[in-house]
Amino acid sequence: MADIRFYQNTGPYTLQDLAAICGATPGPQANPNLIIIDVAPLHKAEKGHISFFHNPKYLDHFKETKAGACLVSEEYVKYAPKGMALLLSPKPYRAYGQVASLFYPSSKRDPNISPHASIHSTAKIGKNCYIGPFTVIEAHVTIGDGCEIKSNTTIEAGVELGSECSIDTNVTISHAILGKRVVVKAGARIGQKGFGFQMDEEGHLDIPQLGRVIIGDDVEVGSNTCIDRGSESDTIIGCGTRIDNLVQIAHNVHIGENSVIVAQTGIAGSTHLGRFVVVAGQVGIAGHLSIGDGVRIAAQSGIMRDIEKGEVVAGYPSVPVREWHRQNIAIKKLGQKGS
Amino acid sequence: MADIRFYQNTGPYTLQDLAAICGATPGPQANPNLIIIDVAPLHKAEKGHISFFHNPKYLDHFKETKAGACLVSEEYVKYAPKGMALLLSPKPYRAYGQVASLFYPSSKRDPNISPHASIHSTAKIGKNCYIGPFTVIEAHVTIGDGCEIKSNTTIEAGVELGSECSIDTNVTISHAILGKRVVVKAGARIGQKGFGFQMDEEGHLDIPQLGRVIIGDDVEVGSNTCIDRGSESDTIIGCGTRIDNLVQIAHNVHIGENSVIVAQTGIAGSTHLGRFVVVAGQVGIAGHLSIGDGVRIAAQSGIMRDIEKGEVVAGYPSVPVREWHRQNIAIKKLGQKGS
Amino acid sequence: MADIRFYQNTGPYTLQDLAAICGATPGPQANPNLIIIDVAPLHKAEKGHISFFHNPKYLDHFKETKAGACLVSEEYVKYAPKGMALLLSPKPYRAYGQVASLFYPSSKRDPNISPHASIHSTAKIGKNCYIGPFTVIEAHVTIGDGCEIKSNTTIEAGVELGSECSIDTNVTISHAILGKRVVVKAGARIGQKGFGFQMDEEGHLDIPQLGRVIIGDDVEVGSNTCIDRGSESDTIIGCGTRIDNLVQIAHNVHIGENSVIVAQTGIAGSTHLGRFVVVAGQVGIAGHLSIGDGVRIAAQSGIMRDIEKGEVVAGYPSVPVREWHRQNIAIKKLGQKGS
Repeated sequence: MADIRFYQNTGPYTLQDLAAICGATPGPQANPNLIIIDVAPLHKAEKGHISFFHNPKYLDHFKETKAGACLVSEEYVKYAPKGMALLLSPKPYRAYGQVASLFYPSSKRDPNISPHASIHSTAKIGKNCYIGPFTVIEAHVTIGDGCEIKSNTTIEAGVELGSECSIDTNVTISHAILGKRVVVKAGARIGQKGFGFQMDEEGHLDIPQLGRVIIGDDVEVGSNTCIDRGSESDTIIGCGTRIDNLVQIAHNVHIGENSVIVAQTGIAGSTHLGRFVVVAGQVGIAGHLSIGDGVRIAAQSGIMRDIEKGEVVAGYPSVPVREWHRQNIAIKKLGQKGS
Repeated sequence: MADIRFYQNTGPYTLQDLAAICGATPGPQANPNLIIIDVAPLHKAEKGHISFFHNPKYLDHFKETKAGACLVSEEYVKYAPKGMALLLSPKPYRAYGQVASLFYPSSKRDPNISPHASIHSTAKIGKNCYIGPFTVIEAHVTIGDGCEIKSNTTIEAGVELGSECSIDTNVTISHAILGKRVVVKAGARIGQKGFGFQMDEEGHLDIPQLGRVIIGDDVEVGSNTCIDRGSESDTIIGCGTRIDNLVQIAHNVHIGENSVIVAQTGIAGSTHLGRFVVVAGQVGIAGHLSIGDGVRIAAQSGIMRDIEKGEVVAGYPSVPVREWHRQNIAIKKLGQKGS
Repeated sequence: MADIRFYQNTGPYTLQDLAAICGATPGPQANPNLIIIDVAPLHKAEKGHISFFHNPKYLDHFKETKAGACLVSEEYVKYAPKGMALLLSPKPYRAYGQVASLFYPSSKRDPNISPHASIHSTAKIGKNCYIGPFTVIEAHVTIGDGCEIKSNTTIEAGVELGSECSIDTNVTISHAILGKRVVVKAGARIGQKGFGFQMDEEGHLDIPQLGRVIIGDDVEVGSNTCIDRGSESDTIIGCGTRIDNLVQIAHNVHIGENSVIVAQTGIAGSTHLGRFVVVAGQVGIAGHLSIGDGVRIAAQSGIMRDIEKGEVVAGYPSVPVREWHRQNIAIKKLGQKGS
């Protein structure tokens, strides 16, 4: 299904190949030698395609799909169209990711340093890197092996990138140390001076911003997201953390490993988030707070206090999510009483 | 009034010329041969200028304006200063747009391909295009006739642009098909990998993002706005839709024709909006929802459910706008009772 | 403490030097000849460092710091570790800013015009400017003395920059007049066409945007922030105003002197803010409003009415901050009553 102008399909594969790659169990009537030529969503899939079903909202699509094969969990087998080969998995979306990655493996650009890049003589560029046209690599920068840095990006003086990083177009990185396999999407700004000054009737006074941004392995930074460098200490993003588009991360923020920050969220200065924290979209978190491991924060919430490990919160100002639901029911009644 | 460093005035015109271009009716005392040299807002207009009045908030400006002529609807004629020539129109702001466009027609840059652009040998560039310095056009890109692509922009491999598109500076476009006369403002990101992965205790697993962004004719995309490409399907923006600055549009979102999305709004993955939907600023819309034709959503609302055609909603979580007003009155009372 | 890859320390200094630069009074047991080699935060400081204490939240850090010297106000002297030299100041954070600026003075890049910049023959570049690679300076631009313009930035035709401006990478500036010492961070967009059109069933009609952006001296514009130009009039940012990252400022907005706009806030068209206004993060302000001098607006508030001089407001829709606290207490009770 993927447009061949943009994606290269490595298939076909047999059902057996696909079951093996994702650890799924073929259903009783599934032919292991069935040829699958592509992946596709339920409503667009045809005979040679494999699809997946995991969101109950799309049960009708599952019942009516024309896919030749489908990844699905046990409980939904009974709704499958007759004749469709099933691959059973307790995590069908994860399994789909593995299957789709077999058909369409992620890949970096072939190694090549554009003659139109501006690379300082003191910069150290690793082996097998791609550096695009009009990209600037300043003095004393270190780029690990196998990195891809696309066009019109600037890596400022002294920055270090680990191996296998992927930096998209129009990015700016300064005052930063990045780990391995870090993905930075287009237009992200990393390491700029934070919003640090003393407000004063005589005019605001700049506070020098003397820290860095430290980014762990396997972090992803979204398009047009901003991560300011630390003021006295560093801004730190833990390994495996995923940050979506248009997020604001202020100076001295720490985010633990494998956390997820959805689009347009803002985290004010010096706040610390734990590991496996999930912050939905458009959340605001005030400064100097501590958000425990595994906390989940609903979209558009406003966080003005510390949140204990494992809490699930919502609202502005935020409360435990069950309280928030009760608040909403009560407020809804207030609105329905007539004026 | 417009600064001649930035704008070229094609005038003067007679009142008659202006009435004709916008279909307005000259008032009884208006001299059709009156010479108008420029447009100007009410509070800055002078004798040779034409202005417009449509927002009652500025009635005092209308009463006191020194403009030589003014576009206005019937009902406000009685407030006009004596001696000012009136052009009557039921839609004075629209008429002003037509008049101002006569004085200052929108125009693209003269055709020219900068010698400092990097254009792949397989790219097809239409006739009469402008391509600015340090812009990158990758392999197999197709650019229609009469396009303008300013500096430091990257159009990635395989992308198609229809004729007469205007792409500003520092833009990134990948995995996308754009229609005719699409306007993309500076720093917009179109077609990047969406925020698609399976969250997991063992570490998050990437789901390949295999779709595209399809943008219809006459769409406008604001500065620093992000539109991620589809995961399995496409992200689709219907013809005539206007998207403001710093908006986030996630993978697989569909927006119908002639909708309007104001600044800093975020639309989560796989949500579908109908035609002529108006979403005010800083709204958040959750994923997998259906928003009907003609829906209007007030600023900062949080949408967590499907919205029926034609509904007007507000609030977090959103309710019909009248309910929201009643909620606000009730909540205001709660705050005034003393603690 | 600052990483020598990124920062150059001009020290050491004596305690006496530091007291002089910030007007602090040495405590009774402070040795004026004590050698201080660097600044550091309380929890990281060592013997040769000077730190500061002003946020009571970090009192434990103050009590346990190993810093050799510390800036502090009178009232907290009693909590200081024994043996630490104290510098007394009524504004210890401001004094720290002055001390840190002595160790690490802000500086621009050495004058140099990159041979890889594209500079129009009619542009006037002042003395001692830095212009980075792949930066575009269009026709009739005027750049004052001592400006720094980093890589991949575009300054469009006719724009004027005062002296000593600092423009970061990947910035776009068009239709604008900037004062002296203006700082524009990476990816900011200044002077683009505003979101101005007449919505209409027949299709939306563009209203020509004929104004400019006028930015006063000493303004700071954050990364990826957007400031649209005026439609009929100008968009104006007063001297000394600080704007954080990812902020949206629509056409015709006026902001007075020394105001502060925190990240991800949006201000809709034609709204006027006074002097010394403080707008916290993620606030939305509707169009055509008047916000008086010295107003303070809490994070995530939604402003839909004029705000009088000096008011402190919060909430969505906003109310005086005390009312908002009472509302929150009342709403919290509603949520705790059980369902």
